[in-house]
Amino acid sequence: MSRASSWAPPPGNPFAGGDTRFHVDGEAFSREEVALANRNAGLPLEALRYEVTPPGLHYLLSHFDMPEVDAASWRLAIGGCVSSAQSVSLAELMQYPTRTLRVTLECAGNGRAGMSPRYPSMPWISEAVSTAEWTGTPLRHLLERARPTDWASEVAFLGLDRGFDRGVEHAYGRSLKLAHALADEVLLVYAMNGQPLLPQHGHPCRLIVPGWYGMASVKWLSRIDVLDKPFDGFQQAVGYHYRKNTDDPGVPVTTMRVRSLMVPPGIPDWYTRRRLVEAGAVELRGRAWAGAGVPVERVEVGVNGQWCEADLAPAGVHRYAWRGWNFTWQATPGEHTLQCRARTAAGDVQPMEPDWNTAGMGNNAVQTLQITVR
Amino acid sequence: MSRASSWAPPPGNPFAGGDTRFHVDGEAFSREEVALANRNAGLPLEALRYEVTPPGLHYLLSHFDMPEVDAASWRLAIGGCVSSAQSVSLAELMQYPTRTLRVTLECAGNGRAGMSPRYPSMPWISEAVSTAEWTGTPLRHLLERARPTDWASEVAFLGLDRGFDRGVEHAYGRSLKLAHALADEVLLVYAMNGQPLLPQHGHPCRLIVPGWYGMASVKWLSRIDVLDKPFDGFQQAVGYHYRKNTDDPGVPVTTMRVRSLMVPPGIPDWYTRRRLVEAGAVELRGRAWAGAGVPVERVEVGVNGQWCEADLAPAGVHRYAWRGWNFTWQATPGEHTLQCRARTAAGDVQPMEPDWNTAGMGNNAVQTLQITVR
Repeated sequence: MSRASSWAPPPGNPFAGGDTRFHVDGEAFSREEVALANRNAGLPLEALRYEVTPPGLHYLLSHFDMPEVDAASWRLAIGGCVSSAQSVSLAELMQYPTRTLRVTLECAGNGRAGMSPRYPSMPWISEAVSTAEWTGTPLRHLLERARPTDWASEVAFLGLDRGFDRGVEHAYGRSLKLAHALADEVLLVYAMNGQPLLPQHGHPCRLIVPGWYGMASVKWLSRIDVLDKPFDGFQQAVGYHYRKNTDDPGVPVTTMRVRSLMVPPGIPDWYTRRRLVEAGAVELRGRAWAGAGVPVERVEVGVNGQWCEADLAPAGVHRYAWRGWNFTWQATPGEHTLQCRARTAAGDVQPMEPDWNTAGMGNNAVQTLQITVR
Repeated sequence: MSRASSWAPPPGNPFAGGDTRFHVDGEAFSREEVALANRNAGLPLEALRYEVTPPGLHYLLSHFDMPEVDAASWRLAIGGCVSSAQSVSLAELMQYPTRTLRVTLECAGNGRAGMSPRYPSMPWISEAVSTAEWTGTPLRHLLERARPTDWASEVAFLGLDRGFDRGVEHAYGRSLKLAHALADEVLLVYAMNGQPLLPQHGHPCRLIVPGWYGMASVKWLSRIDVLDKPFDGFQQAVGYHYRKNTDDPGVPVTTMRVRSLMVPPGIPDWYTRRRLVEAGAVELRGRAWAGAGVPVERVEVGVNGQWCEADLAPAGVHRYAWRGWNFTWQATPGEHTLQCRARTAAGDVQPMEPDWNTAGMGNNAVQTLQITVR
């Protein structure tokens, strides 16, 4: 993985491209962005009505192609700074204690389309969030069997998906600090909503890191390396940082920031997605989530800038999943602006405007909808 | 449905918009196009490797929001020019004779992103095609029970999805000529790949019209109207026509034109999707289909403009599904252009360049991939 730590593309690399090509101006989107949007499905916002996102509606962000993996011959290797290297088949993995968690995942780049100039990547508007029931085994069971050495500090996860990013060839890979990797909620997952993982969600086995943006939950796992130093893979060392400018070494992207979204009410115009609502009582509903282990405690709905408290569903047992909320709006004929804003028990609240970083990561600004009532 | 037949938006309509706003220039894509691309998922082309597209990878094109339908209380009404109007529940529909067909569907707008200037709609590049096993009952069983009158000529299908298009409010609806509606392959479908329809695919019941572009296969069915004159619904009378210019009354879009696509070989660059392939024998593979009831009989692969015959899988029993093909390419280091081209038994062949109509419908030009071999 030594090549992966370099920001500059290796000399002679056919896919080299400097940082300068990495800004697209303003409102116009590129063909490359559209191609990524066609490949990477978002959650149609009306599907926020489902507590658990149905199959095929869960958002997808895959950097490279979906690999073709034969589950029968697949094995997961665990090596590096361990006393007893392991290699497990899917059948063996399924013998470990099982745990199912309902987890909300959001792409770290969700909302990037609002930037101008914009980092050219997947142009999410706000639809890169979903919730599923993930079944697998806590990773710690396998790590405990492999017995990390005393000098182990980090655990890297390598996928079978491979390609280039900014000139650097690599398999998609990410890491967690050892203590985090040993937490009981970090799962090696082989089922989603009670069914074997679909090809696009990491079949036959993926990582799920509850509370973190989706980039941590490596799909199509092939290898787990226990390390005695920070992982230098591209997606860890270069990608997924909050940077003020391209010279800034930046801060790693980790947990999901507090956020809420609403189901757009009424009916849409096909092309503009502007909404028409009938006057009268309109039941607004949506979801709210936060990733840092602190629950959402309040959701407000803004109607033309006036904020009112929404009803928040009980926290329940699913501490890593979004919470539903609803609010009855007395809609009167005319043009209206609807917004929603969540706050955590720690006092974190969604900002009204995004505070952009270079790659458009971690945006959690308030959603704003323009509604026509007749 | 009288409003739906008007091309000009009704006066005072909040979503009015003339035809002039319906062209976007050149390479730059609009925010509205990106929003549609984020909602409407395409088939990642590597998923062409699956004979039957796995759940959640089948392309989606929905004009309006997915409606929320309670299958237990849902009923399908059949009325209009019939002797015995019907209303059936899902349980009753499932008592009719069942038929399962493997059907390839393609969006009529597949490839529209190649236009310049471009009709602003869903900016498909080439990924709006998929294949599923659809289970339901031939529509003719219900029509025979309803007994169309002697003057019946057409059958209209209305969905539960509603919205605006070019200022006209309507439920999504399409029609078929009566003789076509009575054909045994036209199905009222309640299962896809052996599972109940997913919300995004028309739950609880949709139409499947094999051989036609996807717009004919109305989702979320609520009502079937037997008519004694042409259906004047917007999506039939205004949408989905081949037009030379906006004054041209045009020709209705019907069956899928012959087409082939290949799985892009090698590994991609994240942003540009350019491909890198290792030198040596490379197994190229893809699918080919045609909708007019005439089978594909030949697929050729073009390597730098030199055309060679690919191996085509046997036609088999699935006459409405795509056929697989493969070709071994001896890749040598350097830059290469790969293409594929299908021909039907009737002699129809894919054109090298698209012959655009106003809305970018029915494009079946040859796919071209630029490949770097090392």
